[in-house]
Amino acid sequence: MHTRLSSASKEVTIGDDQPFCIIGERINPTGRRLFQEQLRAGDLSAIERDVAAQVAQGAMVLDINMGVPLTDEPALLRRAVKLVQSITDLPICIDSSVVEALEAGLSVYEGRALVNSITAEDDRMAEILPMVKHYNAAVIALPNDHDEIPMEADKRLVLTKKILDTAVDKYGLAVEDIIIDPLAMPIGADPNIVNVAYETIHRIHDEYGANMTVGASNVSFGMPGRQTINATFLPMAMTVGLTSAIMDARTPQIVEAVKAADLLLGHDEWGMAWIAAHRARQVAEKASTP
Amino acid sequence: MHTRLSSASKEVTIGDDQPFCIIGERINPTGRRLFQEQLRAGDLSAIERDVAAQVAQGAMVLDINMGVPLTDEPALLRRAVKLVQSITDLPICIDSSVVEALEAGLSVYEGRALVNSITAEDDRMAEILPMVKHYNAAVIALPNDHDEIPMEADKRLVLTKKILDTAVDKYGLAVEDIIIDPLAMPIGADPNIVNVAYETIHRIHDEYGANMTVGASNVSFGMPGRQTINATFLPMAMTVGLTSAIMDARTPQIVEAVKAADLLLGHDEWGMAWIAAHRARQVAEKASTP
Repeated sequence: MHTRLSSASKEVTIGDDQPFCIIGERINPTGRRLFQEQLRAGDLSAIERDVAAQVAQGAMVLDINMGVPLTDEPALLRRAVKLVQSITDLPICIDSSVVEALEAGLSVYEGRALVNSITAEDDRMAEILPMVKHYNAAVIALPNDHDEIPMEADKRLVLTKKILDTAVDKYGLAVEDIIIDPLAMPIGADPNIVNVAYETIHRIHDEYGANMTVGASNVSFGMPGRQTINATFLPMAMTVGLTSAIMDARTPQIVEAVKAADLLLGHDEWGMAWIAAHRARQVAEKASTP
Repeated sequence: MHTRLSSASKEVTIGDDQPFCIIGERINPTGRRLFQEQLRAGDLSAIERDVAAQVAQGAMVLDINMGVPLTDEPALLRRAVKLVQSITDLPICIDSSVVEALEAGLSVYEGRALVNSITAEDDRMAEILPMVKHYNAAVIALPNDHDEIPMEADKRLVLTKKILDTAVDKYGLAVEDIIIDPLAMPIGADPNIVNVAYETIHRIHDEYGANMTVGASNVSFGMPGRQTINATFLPMAMTVGLTSAIMDARTPQIVEAVKAADLLLGHDEWGMAWIAAHRARQVAEKASTP
């Protein structure tokens, strides 16, 4: 199953026969105090650096979240979408919990955006899915209900089915326009919690063939050695069917692990991309040697 | 299912509810010209360094292969087994294609050894399985026939069933004493070849619950960035049921990836081992700062 995203000039395809889709998580003020202050003052200049760093390491889509309390989030998100589209041709994932902000971002977006996100709650689907349809976008859907995150794969599968059925039957979307987030939570909270995510991914892949994405940095929250945990989590999730992630696209260790997994899963035939990236690093290292 | 290995004083359990069993590959003259020359001259001193390096990074079992042409391999293997058992309490994997060498190693081994390896060939099973039974050892079994490596998971499953049935019904071994090698081959040879290994691992785990091991360094043969490929391959294989590997136990990147996968799979409750290893590295770094 293929989910197509695009900017004005570039298309990205997400699918289980494609290289893993790396969605850069960086343009997000959560936990970034300085960036929050800049956004409150209407200063978007940090975004240019964030775009450049993520593009340089291999981001294929960029998530944009402008969720700063006490600001006009729709206006900020509209400006940010326009700014990012002016400096890169990567497709964008428009990320907000505020419906008006999603609408503002979509209204100025050129191409086929990804919307982040809906849940299995009827009111959230009713507010957002018609908009996704109207703007011909795709959407990330979390299989949880009333802010409660199900701890069993069974329940996540039931809510996934509810979302897919509702999106298709009631709002006229195609299954390939819904990207399920199987819910990856911190391993430090419960030793079995990542196994539940892997089981959920495996079963959604087998039963629906739907594309999936996760907020990949969550799993290592509170642990030391976060980059190694994140670089290990993603290939494991890819093995059972994960096709994209909203992730740290600036850390070579993590991006390289994803590229190695692409190679091992047969999504980089004869290692063409792997070998080319290796050569490019050698050239860069040589160039930086005094 | 639990496979127990032991030395005179230490037991190691392999199983899908256990931390991954890291079998150090280093004590092997293949591709090591200097070591080959030393072994031809009867000089085993390099082994002490190889043991120390593997133990330091986290090996849990040590493979010993003394396959040098034009030597008395049984005599060398007997000496090497005694030497290694005199300097470490880790269990040993006695590795040879020569039946007499396996017998020589087993005859002096103290504890419960792992024997590497048999295939699905009747004559190889007839020569080795009675010896494995006699010495109360466990054995690695490759599901291939007459030197031909099957390229389809189906065929590997058929040969796995043949091996397990023969070992149990004809030679009186227990299923837990057979560790299947699902056959990991170089990704550079065929873009789908690692997928076949993953499918084989998944199906053997589901259908027989048997423990498995692979020669993990093979997959990256001929590619640049081998350590990253190896560090990515193992967590992926663990996700579908691999429980041990004969692997590079001296490279921190690879061992840390396995430990991160243990954490994510719930085999390191609350991250106790992960956090302890992180603290030990911090202490070591501090101590080495001038």
